[in-house]
Amino acid sequence: MFYVVNDMRNLTHIEGGVTAAAGFKAAGVEATVKYASRKDMALLVADEPCAVAALYTSNKVAAAPVVIDRERSASGVAQAVVINSGNANACTGLLGLQDAREMGRLTAAALGIDQSLVLVCSTGVIGVHLPMDKIATGVKKAAAALSHDGGHNAACAIMTTDTVKKEVAIELEIDDKRIVIGGMAKGSGMIEPNMATMLAFITTDAVIAYGALDMALRAAVEISFNRIVVDGDQSTNDTVIAMASAKAGNRSLSQEHPGWERFVDALKTLCVELAKKIVMDGEGATKFVTVKVSGAATAADAQLVARAVAKSPLVKTSWFGVDPNWGRVIAAAGYSGAAVEEQHVQISIGGIVAYDQGRVAQTGELDAMRRAMKARFFEVEINLNLGQGCDTVFTCDLSHDYVSINAEYTT
Amino acid sequence: MFYVVNDMRNLTHIEGGVTAAAGFKAAGVEATVKYASRKDMALLVADEPCAVAALYTSNKVAAAPVVIDRERSASGVAQAVVINSGNANACTGLLGLQDAREMGRLTAAALGIDQSLVLVCSTGVIGVHLPMDKIATGVKKAAAALSHDGGHNAACAIMTTDTVKKEVAIELEIDDKRIVIGGMAKGSGMIEPNMATMLAFITTDAVIAYGALDMALRAAVEISFNRIVVDGDQSTNDTVIAMASAKAGNRSLSQEHPGWERFVDALKTLCVELAKKIVMDGEGATKFVTVKVSGAATAADAQLVARAVAKSPLVKTSWFGVDPNWGRVIAAAGYSGAAVEEQHVQISIGGIVAYDQGRVAQTGELDAMRRAMKARFFEVEINLNLGQGCDTVFTCDLSHDYVSINAEYTT
Repeated sequence: MFYVVNDMRNLTHIEGGVTAAAGFKAAGVEATVKYASRKDMALLVADEPCAVAALYTSNKVAAAPVVIDRERSASGVAQAVVINSGNANACTGLLGLQDAREMGRLTAAALGIDQSLVLVCSTGVIGVHLPMDKIATGVKKAAAALSHDGGHNAACAIMTTDTVKKEVAIELEIDDKRIVIGGMAKGSGMIEPNMATMLAFITTDAVIAYGALDMALRAAVEISFNRIVVDGDQSTNDTVIAMASAKAGNRSLSQEHPGWERFVDALKTLCVELAKKIVMDGEGATKFVTVKVSGAATAADAQLVARAVAKSPLVKTSWFGVDPNWGRVIAAAGYSGAAVEEQHVQISIGGIVAYDQGRVAQTGELDAMRRAMKARFFEVEINLNLGQGCDTVFTCDLSHDYVSINAEYTT
Repeated sequence: MFYVVNDMRNLTHIEGGVTAAAGFKAAGVEATVKYASRKDMALLVADEPCAVAALYTSNKVAAAPVVIDRERSASGVAQAVVINSGNANACTGLLGLQDAREMGRLTAAALGIDQSLVLVCSTGVIGVHLPMDKIATGVKKAAAALSHDGGHNAACAIMTTDTVKKEVAIELEIDDKRIVIGGMAKGSGMIEPNMATMLAFITTDAVIAYGALDMALRAAVEISFNRIVVDGDQSTNDTVIAMASAKAGNRSLSQEHPGWERFVDALKTLCVELAKKIVMDGEGATKFVTVKVSGAATAADAQLVARAVAKSPLVKTSWFGVDPNWGRVIAAAGYSGAAVEEQHVQISIGGIVAYDQGRVAQTGELDAMRRAMKARFFEVEINLNLGQGCDTVFTCDLSHDYVSINAEYTT
């Protein structure tokens, strides 16, 4: 599907991230989990237990914290999330599970709450045990540093190869009440749809039951975090957590509520913006490319084509080289598994037609495409002219820096 | 499956390529299809019409010559193959089909044979019409240059971004007769199993009916050209053609013949060696990596894991960086779609155990892996310990030069 927001009335961007909504504190501190002198532990805490919804990696090799959070978030209630960067606590066996539980227990103790209310997230290198002494110290430091404007520090502390922190906050009005939704995310490499090492945390002060929050979150994640591709690798740790503190005083949101669409649209907007920030900060990325597929026989086919184009190393390197090599685009469509009939396909790059049902771009058009591709942002549109299926994926190019970053980011 | 040759008795490597077997002439000439001063048209001609078997790309966007050859090779009889590099004649519409037919007709005229006996191959840039005047001149030049030792020139003429020509020839004895199988291939980028831009031409003087030749070729391609990954992009032009001139005087080969296995093994050996040459010449490749998966629940699962590992940009860049980052290997296995249980997985890199059912490599082992990875050739072995399924894929790393080559190889 294309990303369409139905109703943007009363939706305003505001400053901040996970502590923009009422009822949340956060902190980000240095715990030297892997490196010295950088924030690498974050804590996000609600004033009281609140509704929670979460989505996790579909990778069959799931990190220890994912295993634990899956269980805990199923209750629909949580109060705190503790996060470390620098170490993924993945492929760490039974000790890894113990460590993740201990990280939660330490957090619960520092906050004086039940450990079943604590979710645990880790991101970083795979296959190394957590340095639990440093985690213990970090948890205490973070609990002491919690504040209602700690969102920025938390957003910094969850970064790994990210070069910028990623925060968004928006406000809207429902039932004449001001509702805030804020979020932070991290992620730069190992990014592919269906959750990438990618952590995202969303808070809202809306009154909403966890079932409704889960429904809204799934709808938002499907068109945002599940529609981004950096390198096509999918992580063991991907997690999106949304918490609702119910401080806003609106009538409880559900599908029956007249403000439901507006709330879901606001959540979609926030998630799409966070997801786009991840792609913009894609490892080594110099281009942000929106791949729009239309006219596919089915929506599933549209998604296959969009992902194949977004993942193709040949397509991605051509973008890096500012080369309107539409031949690689159509080749990727052809091997995507979707129904494709070459004689019906239309491809545009940067708004200029590259291939139109057999007619190919000439020198002037190729030059115009090159000019469009010099911008940091451009679109690649593919109309298969076979049906009504459409989809959009946000992606980036494949550059020398991607190779450098990943050849050097060491075990 | 693993690549196993059952019987190597009497199998000897000899000099040469497609003209090593009796009954074939070839030529490679300069036709300036795209560049000046390089051989870019090849011609391979049998003395008489002979048995032919061929396999083509499964990309739904197939180049014009593929469309024509599919039809022609179905007859099981052919006498000549004309090939140009520098232009793929793909996505060129009806004119492209006319051009490919005309290229065949010109060749048939120059050779004085029926055009239904001529196969046509193109490789190079997509979406540009063939310069038919140059093709016409090239065909005449090539026909005039045909010789029984023209295989080397033909192997040079089919290269695009290839840095070395790729030829193999072997001989074996069946029915007390010397049988020769020779081949040439091209391919370097846009390489993924199930045919990559990759052309391969195989000739033999064995007596074999086209049905048997087809059966043998399918078996050989399945473990060779269909088990290589450079970048995971699949081309519009992939073609493997085998021709048998029947000059060797053996009893006609079929499954009933006692020498059948030996012939198929010889063909497999030849195809695996040609396929490996393609990976070794992979665009920008500095490492040749054999990914061996065993213990999968099914053979299909083993293949999923092997391909996911071989295609992962994160895994490939870690190889380039000589980094024993087994975490990326297990993450790729986890998202491959195959059944994977982290606590049963074993991973070795360069023969050293990296991860063993929960136990992770320590400093000394990581150092030993780094030493092994400094070699140009090493193996990554993954035992899932869930069943009997196994598979092997040959692949390479992802380097800065891959990015440079593909950012600059222009439309």
